[in-house]
Amino acid sequence: MSHPDKGAPLARYAASKRVGDFIFLSGIIAVDPARRLIVNGFDDIPDEAARILGRTGEFSSDLKKGPILSQSWYVLDAIQQIIQREGGQMSDVFKLVQYFRNLDHFPYYSEVRGLFFPDDPPISTIVEVSAMLPSEQVLIEVEATAYLPLNVAKD
Amino acid sequence: MSHPDKGAPLARYAASKRVGDFIFLSGIIAVDPARRLIVNGFDDIPDEAARILGRTGEFSSDLKKGPILSQSWYVLDAIQQIIQREGGQMSDVFKLVQYFRNLDHFPYYSEVRGLFFPDDPPISTIVEVSAMLPSEQVLIEVEATAYLPLNVAKD
Amino acid sequence: MSHPDKGAPLARYAASKRVGDFIFLSGIIAVDPARRLIVNGFDDIPDEAARILGRTGEFSSDLKKGPILSQSWYVLDAIQQIIQREGGQMSDVFKLVQYFRNLDHFPYYSEVRGLFFPDDPPISTIVEVSAMLPSEQVLIEVEATAYLPLNVAKD
Amino acid sequence: MSHPDKGAPLARYAASKRVGDFIFLSGIIAVDPARRLIVNGFDDIPDEAARILGRTGEFSSDLKKGPILSQSWYVLDAIQQIIQREGGQMSDVFKLVQYFRNLDHFPYYSEVRGLFFPDDPPISTIVEVSAMLPSEQVLIEVEATAYLPLNVAKD
Amino acid sequence: MSHPDKGAPLARYAASKRVGDFIFLSGIIAVDPARRLIVNGFDDIPDEAARILGRTGEFSSDLKKGPILSQSWYVLDAIQQIIQREGGQMSDVFKLVQYFRNLDHFPYYSEVRGLFFPDDPPISTIVEVSAMLPSEQVLIEVEATAYLPLNVAKD
Amino acid sequence: MSHPDKGAPLARYAASKRVGDFIFLSGIIAVDPARRLIVNGFDDIPDEAARILGRTGEFSSDLKKGPILSQSWYVLDAIQQIIQREGGQMSDVFKLVQYFRNLDHFPYYSEVRGLFFPDDPPISTIVEVSAMLPSEQVLIEVEATAYLPLNVAKD
Amino acid sequence: MSHPDKGAPLARYAASKRVGDFIFLSGIIAVDPARRLIVNGFDDIPDEAARILGRTGEFSSDLKKGPILSQSWYVLDAIQQIIQREGGQMSDVFKLVQYFRNLDHFPYYSEVRGLFFPDDPPISTIVEVSAMLPSEQVLIEVEATAYLPLNVAKD
Amino acid sequence: MSHPDKGAPLARYAASKRVGDFIFLSGIIAVDPARRLIVNGFDDIPDEAARILGRTGEFSSDLKKGPILSQSWYVLDAIQQIIQREGGQMSDVFKLVQYFRNLDHFPYYSEVRGLFFPDDPPISTIVEVSAMLPSEQVLIEVEATAYLPLNVAKD
Amino acid sequence: MSHPDKGAPLARYAASKRVGDFIFLSGIIAVDPARRLIVNGFDDIPDEAARILGRTGEFSSDLKKGPILSQSWYVLDAIQQIIQREGGQMSDVFKLVQYFRNLDHFPYYSEVRGLFFPDDPPISTIVEVSAMLPSEQVLIEVEATAYLPLNVAKD
Amino acid sequence: MSHPDKGAPLARYAASKRVGDFIFLSGIIAVDPARRLIVNGFDDIPDEAARILGRTGEFSSDLKKGPILSQSWYVLDAIQQIIQREGGQMSDVFKLVQYFRNLDHFPYYSEVRGLFFPDDPPISTIVEVSAMLPSEQVLIEVEATAYLPLNVAKD
Amino acid sequence: MSHPDKGAPLARYAASKRVGDFIFLSGIIAVDPARRLIVNGFDDIPDEAARILGRTGEFSSDLKKGPILSQSWYVLDAIQQIIQREGGQMSDVFKLVQYFRNLDHFPYYSEVRGLFFPDDPPISTIVEVSAMLPSEQVLIEVEATAYLPLNVAKD
Amino acid sequence: MSHPDKGAPLARYAASKRVGDFIFLSGIIAVDPARRLIVNGFDDIPDEAARILGRTGEFSSDLKKGPILSQSWYVLDAIQQIIQREGGQMSDVFKLVQYFRNLDHFPYYSEVRGLFFPDDPPISTIVEVSAMLPSEQVLIEVEATAYLPLNVAKD
Repeated sequence: MSHPDKGAPLARYAASKRVGDFIFLSGIIAVDPARRLIVNGFDDIPDEAARILGRTGEFSSDLKKGPILSQSWYVLDAIQQIIQREGGQMSDVFKLVQYFRNLDHFPYYSEVRGLFFPDDPPISTIVEVSAMLPSEQVLIEVEATAYLPLNVAKD
Repeated sequence: MSHPDKGAPLARYAASKRVGDFIFLSGIIAVDPARRLIVNGFDDIPDEAARILGRTGEFSSDLKKGPILSQSWYVLDAIQQIIQREGGQMSDVFKLVQYFRNLDHFPYYSEVRGLFFPDDPPISTIVEVSAMLPSEQVLIEVEATAYLPLNVAKD
Repeated sequence: MSHPDKGAPLARYAASKRVGDFIFLSGIIAVDPARRLIVNGFDDIPDEAARILGRTGEFSSDLKKGPILSQSWYVLDAIQQIIQREGGQMSDVFKLVQYFRNLDHFPYYSEVRGLFFPDDPPISTIVEVSAMLPSEQVLIEVEATAYLPLNVAKD
Repeated sequence: MSHPDKGAPLARYAASKRVGDFIFLSGIIAVDPARRLIVNGFDDIPDEAARILGRTGEFSSDLKKGPILSQSWYVLDAIQQIIQREGGQMSDVFKLVQYFRNLDHFPYYSEVRGLFFPDDPPISTIVEVSAMLPSEQVLIEVEATAYLPLNVAKD
Repeated sequence: MSHPDKGAPLARYAASKRVGDFIFLSGIIAVDPARRLIVNGFDDIPDEAARILGRTGEFSSDLKKGPILSQSWYVLDAIQQIIQREGGQMSDVFKLVQYFRNLDHFPYYSEVRGLFFPDDPPISTIVEVSAMLPSEQVLIEVEATAYLPLNVAKD
Repeated sequence: MSHPDKGAPLARYAASKRVGDFIFLSGIIAVDPARRLIVNGFDDIPDEAARILGRTGEFSSDLKKGPILSQSWYVLDAIQQIIQREGGQMSDVFKLVQYFRNLDHFPYYSEVRGLFFPDDPPISTIVEVSAMLPSEQVLIEVEATAYLPLNVAKD
Repeated sequence: MSHPDKGAPLARYAASKRVGDFIFLSGIIAVDPARRLIVNGFDDIPDEAARILGRTGEFSSDLKKGPILSQSWYVLDAIQQIIQREGGQMSDVFKLVQYFRNLDHFPYYSEVRGLFFPDDPPISTIVEVSAMLPSEQVLIEVEATAYLPLNVAKD
Repeated sequence: MSHPDKGAPLARYAASKRVGDFIFLSGIIAVDPARRLIVNGFDDIPDEAARILGRTGEFSSDLKKGPILSQSWYVLDAIQQIIQREGGQMSDVFKLVQYFRNLDHFPYYSEVRGLFFPDDPPISTIVEVSAMLPSEQVLIEVEATAYLPLNVAKD
Repeated sequence: MSHPDKGAPLARYAASKRVGDFIFLSGIIAVDPARRLIVNGFDDIPDEAARILGRTGEFSSDLKKGPILSQSWYVLDAIQQIIQREGGQMSDVFKLVQYFRNLDHFPYYSEVRGLFFPDDPPISTIVEVSAMLPSEQVLIEVEATAYLPLNVAKD
Repeated sequence: MSHPDKGAPLARYAASKRVGDFIFLSGIIAVDPARRLIVNGFDDIPDEAARILGRTGEFSSDLKKGPILSQSWYVLDAIQQIIQREGGQMSDVFKLVQYFRNLDHFPYYSEVRGLFFPDDPPISTIVEVSAMLPSEQVLIEVEATAYLPLNVAKD
Repeated sequence: MSHPDKGAPLARYAASKRVGDFIFLSGIIAVDPARRLIVNGFDDIPDEAARILGRTGEFSSDLKKGPILSQSWYVLDAIQQIIQREGGQMSDVFKLVQYFRNLDHFPYYSEVRGLFFPDDPPISTIVEVSAMLPSEQVLIEVEATAYLPLNVAKD
Repeated sequence: MSHPDKGAPLARYAASKRVGDFIFLSGIIAVDPARRLIVNGFDDIPDEAARILGRTGEFSSDLKKGPILSQSWYVLDAIQQIIQREGGQMSDVFKLVQYFRNLDHFPYYSEVRGLFFPDDPPISTIVEVSAMLPSEQVLIEVEATAYLPLNVAKD
């Protein structure tokens, strides 16, 4: 379920930066840079992920909840991969700022976030904004920050 | 005027986290977790606070300006309590990101913020967003960050 | 092309704060505190800047793209001045959070940002919000963070 | 979990009528005639039902998905009680016409309907309408029809 | 007060059909096929009906409530005529589906319906829709179903 | 021109049910379950059907009227296939409830319906609703009911 | 049915003033100063008044027409009490300026006004405004003026 | 150019009342009670009036400016007739409150008012409201007050 | 702080009229006839007035609350000057009709009004209207009436 | 089917002008200057034209498609008459600029245009505009240009 | 009253071109290239022109009708100057295409056009569009075409 | 970079017509008749053109400015091909009428136009319209006219 390019920036900006003991990440959206594709439903994520997120197989239900569930998974999975490349893990993320196009999507996102942060959840800020890049298909953007002291060994 | 539960998160996220010398806080909104109540006017905050904020006793004036003044007070008071629990004080807060439902509310909020930061004000970012959690009654959300070096004694 | 007052806050907040090895900046908008003026076109920035940004001399084109180009330049130039006053330079900025009134403005802003960050771009979060202070003329607000360790000499 | 009054009409109309081998039902909404209350969240239905429907205990999630889940359960439970009073059971319902205020609610309703029709689902018509009685709080109205031949014994 | 043509369809569809013991009716609107007129006020219905419905003689009141009251009467009167032509009477109607342009009209309609169903009211479904044929002047459409067993003598 | 899967439900509901002498159908929309495709123009229906419906070959005209004509044909054709599978024919359909996204589409639909019901048209109810499942591309939904006594031989 | 506080102003203004032979009244709204309550339905007025105004006991009808009927009664009753306290009676009111949130409410108000002015009606001005104090729940505001010469004895 | 019925109220209210030395008038709109007609253009007023108001004979111009000019004339002419019936003249009107549907109509109204008040103009209040009775065709309503001492002879 | 021209009408109407013992005023708006300027902030009123009204010196706060505070002051000050020219004083004003563009401005206006009527407040009617003359910059219009008997000496 | 006045301008402008070898026409709309009538349906054009355009006799269909079909016919017929008066014929029209209120009307118009230009169609520009003169009932305006050399004999 | 620069293009396009016997003009708007000013009222045109157009001196009337009257005059005057520079006169203009932001402005424009074309008016096309360059202040754009044969002497 | 079919009409109209010394063109939109494709970004035009127009390779920038730049290029390139087929060149085009969906796109279009008319620009009319054929994806339509005397040799 690994996407080597995930989290690679779409434009002239860095996906993450280490400064001191911190890893700062750009706001991540569900865009696959390899396929130049905005994730738009269960078909755009791995089958196993779709199964875990509750794909029903019913056309209407999946069409309605697929976009937010798939984008939520894609974004958090991308954050996880970036953190892992830096030598950390999801529990090192201590802060999330989350932008929604529609806060009615929150319960779906909240379930997905619980899968990635089963134990000690990060601090969290959530607001609904008018739009995000690159287009109106984007439903969520997540900006994560991790704390990963350099001289502390991780197991 | 102490609310022991204030700032306790409404959901699966932490209200604050210490990382290194910093205290990061979640975006705080005016929701009382004990009463499961969204603060909506002078009646939802202590009388002494309402008096300081300028409750007029006139029904229409209080109904119009009560919600933003009360939420502003509640949110900043909650931030203060969280910082104090961490052993710091309001002047340790060096950064505020403030989200409004309606920026016409700014002058009211600005007055309240002046009460909590009488001397050296923090840096500040302010934008108007479409909505915040949990409902449209929420008029303001404030995300604070404090600097509180561990090995520095506070008096 | 130096504006000594640029970045000076419009109200009771600090334009920037050093905490530990970091310089945190307020969200910066294109308001000239000396002239109490919201930058609204090529006429409100230095001629040399307008030339670099592509002022065409055609009334309609300049009226359409002037506001976002000029505000983008003004804001990033103000950030640069603040960082320089702290003894750093633009490449020390490692993070930008950028708020737009209209994300269709992004290509214009993106070109201007490229002028200020020619080499190693910072991490970046971009959302469209409903409004910013002080009025609807404001098209963009940028919150920058820099890393400038105290014991490291800059040349 | 029995509500003797559920399905009692709010006004001058019958909740159900037997004509020949059919039981026709009025469009049912989530209004409790005993309490003159429009069901508006998990607090307005029995705890056991709320638990089955997935109440999370998180304020924001429950506030967002509680209304549609609770109304869906209340309406289908009311239909079940009416059919049972007529001597039938849910599997005798062969047709549902379902009106929504917002079809984005469909995945939530669909899950609840699956609980009431685990085996052989009825035929179904679903549309989104502008409003329903008695007020804008009503999110769903379901009109059921059952086939229950008089001379056929039910076990 | 008899309108022989009332209920005659405006287009290629039947006004009613007997199938087995049932009489099914098309959705009826307040259009007079003889005059090709959409009923739009007290002047478009018989004086006696207008009097019963509460015509005040005040221009503004009658202009405001005349359209919904007149259409309600016209539609229910048309249904009654169709049922009577089939040999039944209004009490044989056991089900009504009622579509409104604006549910604020409901109290007016409800009063008129009480005149046609003084005793045992039918089951009822009511929703507000965006529009009906043939034009936006149409405020209400009623679809009735009657049960009139063939071998049962009516007196 | 036969589509064996047409009318197969998209989700957990039955496409049709026989109860007594009646065949009740779900509301049918123009979605091809085999291709998981919402019919959106002449290209999505058989060429012969497109020819009969008046495809002009002009890009703009076909783009404008293609969606409603094609969906109208697809839906009525699906109803016909369901009825035929039950051993009946289109003239056994005695009732249609028709939901539109935009009643300005009615003249196009009306022409198509005339092709399927050349002789004795069914009773008809028509309203415009805000939306239908699964998405805003759906322009029409038709709910048909047929009468097909079991002990009556059809030729 | 007497409410001693009715008409008491909500804020810093007088409910009425005698100047010369005239009694001028403030614009009166349906707010009960004792209960700090905006009248919002039949439950907020005396039962006898609700009965006279035509409370049906049907939930939907009463919910739709209750607010305007109750506010109309409350406001005119308050005016009557003020005039009576000044030693006059309703027939001394010679002028009404009436502000509505929605002029479709006029027929309801007109009936109530007829109860208070059975004989010689006052002059009248009626307009629909965008909003009134203290909140959007207020549907009507009435400003009355009475003529009550000081040296004329009333019986 | 006399319309004996003009100014007669449309409903249960008086067109004018004398109280003491004052004549108070209801808000007057351009509705002809004899013809039950809302004045909607030059064709609804006397030809001589239309000529004075600047009827051009061009269809489009007259259709655009005819309604406001004609209603303005009709309303002021009605006020004049009421005042004259009371024994006064237009110069006795000392106060006008004028409600518009659209204040862009003001220059047209202002010209007409100048014809009726050539010398000493009254005091004036002007606002734009959402709607007036009886329908949206009404563009202007004028409430006049006159001072006409009883014991002063008028010539 | 005297503005000799304030209250002079902008057009063909009188600013005030004495009739009998009354002084009637036109609806007053914050337009300076000398400068042909619509008052739009603290810069358009005397410094002393701005200070009393709470000018903060913060750009954003003053830009947000300056317009309504300044217009409120300007209008009430103009009314005061008119009354004083007639030989009266503010306490002779017994009635105010106040039109707002946005009733959320009420608390600001209410404070200003308290400065002009410290003791015995007048009766008051307040509504929100769609627009006022001459342009959308106008936020408030106040129509005052004073009682100033001719034969009563004022000190 | 001849309308001698058709194409006569509604105002101070010419319907057509010959300049050199060209005939330029004003933008033509479907207004009958003799009857001062905006063509609004099949009843406003000759029966034979209505028959050719596909009048169905069904009230709803004709009400929906009648206005655009009738206006299209009326406008093109008027252009034809103007060209014929100039001694030319429809095939001399080489250019059409067509303005629509709603481009969904295009397929209807396109069919009508095909009747007037059966062979060699003119060049064409088509846009949707916000409104046309004289009122919102106008759905289409067509500006034609013809080439008709003076010294070339036409047969 | 001559403005030598009027009609000079704002950008990279020609104001007029002679081709053969024709003078074609760009769409002209009321922008003064010398002052880089969009004409916005009587103050932006010569006093004599303002007087002829009916400046009243009343602030509100002039503010409402000044913009369209002044722009109409400015545009037609600019066209006249261009034609005159080409050696022609206004009567050589045979065609006008006129774009409005709001067709309610037509009567004002029509009066101004009559001043420039007192005798033989040109053909005319008029539509309302959403916007024009360079900004929303532009209310009208006029595209003129003149016929001025080269070998014909003008007097 | 030649597209032989470009400019071929989508429907029953001619792309261009020679009349006398003129070449008139239909309004051209960015639709590729061969591929039945509306040009929607840099991927729909030749790479070389995309490079010249400033494709950045950044996903968001290209997605935002790609549609208008590509359509502008496609339309002007199509006009050039049509003119060349007639034996002329771009400098023979003397007039352009340009319709936009959004005039904020003008600076992008203006740059592209400069590439096609480097020297002597044509006259120009520009307006923003509500929509163009065939769908809302169309952002620009350009109607060109060229002068190409028959008896003048071109080199």
